[in-house]
Amino acid sequence: MSEQVLEKLIKKVAKLPGLGPRSSRRVVLHLLKDKETLLLPLIEDMNNVANNIKKCVECGNLDENDICQICKNSSRNQTLLCVVETVADLWALERSNVYNGKYHILGGVLSAIDGINPDQLNIDSLEKRLESNMFTEVIVAISATLDGQTTAHYLAERLGKFDIKITRLAHGLPVGGELDFLDDGTIAQALKARNLL
Amino acid sequence: MSEQVLEKLIKKVAKLPGLGPRSSRRVVLHLLKDKETLLLPLIEDMNNVANNIKKCVECGNLDENDICQICKNSSRNQTLLCVVETVADLWALERSNVYNGKYHILGGVLSAIDGINPDQLNIDSLEKRLESNMFTEVIVAISATLDGQTTAHYLAERLGKFDIKITRLAHGLPVGGELDFLDDGTIAQALKARNLL
Repeated sequence: MSEQVLEKLIKKVAKLPGLGPRSSRRVVLHLLKDKETLLLPLIEDMNNVANNIKKCVECGNLDENDICQICKNSSRNQTLLCVVETVADLWALERSNVYNGKYHILGGVLSAIDGINPDQLNIDSLEKRLESNMFTEVIVAISATLDGQTTAHYLAERLGKFDIKITRLAHGLPVGGELDFLDDGTIAQALKARNLL
Repeated sequence: MSEQVLEKLIKKVAKLPGLGPRSSRRVVLHLLKDKETLLLPLIEDMNNVANNIKKCVECGNLDENDICQICKNSSRNQTLLCVVETVADLWALERSNVYNGKYHILGGVLSAIDGINPDQLNIDSLEKRLESNMFTEVIVAISATLDGQTTAHYLAERLGKFDIKITRLAHGLPVGGELDFLDDGTIAQALKARNLL
């Protein structure tokens, strides 16, 4: 009976990505140091998120409204659609502040190992958007992993029926990256796609 | 307006010990992957903890009752009292399964830098327990840091008026530890306290 309530929370927190039993104990004890200023406000914020945040019916982004701020924003480029795996990827692109078009969240990548097939990704809704909207280019911004590349090729094939340019992110040397630490594949791609200085 | 609710939660989670903005985003997005099975149960467990967990009035441990399971347990050794800094330390000792006495949580260590003086530690309540109980030994199980050692010496002095043996944890080579990686202080202490094989 004793530590059950506490143990249960610690076990749940330990399952969060990036945390384990030790860090979970640390987090929970930290929250209990001062319930009023730490634990209760966190619960309140979580409740707010649970009650107010939903998926945008257009793109799949998370927002307080049915249609997210990005989809609503008429000052963004309405002809560009960027396909990303997750909301985290959308946020990463938004933070970089260089893309001004719309997004479509795929919800993952195809994976034989994890049993993810095309039906489990938001590809039907992507096709519907391409049919009814005036997009002129789809940028496939998917991870350069094996599964990601497979998904990108699958998308390119499936979207081929639309008269829309399909592009992908460039491969190459990360900014600030050292050649010495780069894998052969990236070096090869960076060499192939070299530009005039 | 858009991401405020979400941003607020992410910022709060990022301030938890061991987490930062990136891991916080990851955790929050993970929780939002499936509200029903991830976020809502976590909120419920947190609420349970917030509503049910309190400090034991005797020792300072966290429990669902005013007197914790350890203080209540009459089969534990009632003559041994182990003084620890935090609940985490108490848990660590309990996990090791070698101590069967009672505990007293000090709530920290003396620190000139952080401005922690004796009044901010649970020393008065410790003295009261020593007056009214039948403890024969106080084990000071405080970190072997500078502040910890200072606190231990302060405690030894202040508790000198009681006719009670005051001991501290042994210093030495950690089990599984390699000599090569050990600091000089520990090696010196381990040599001094060497035992017959």
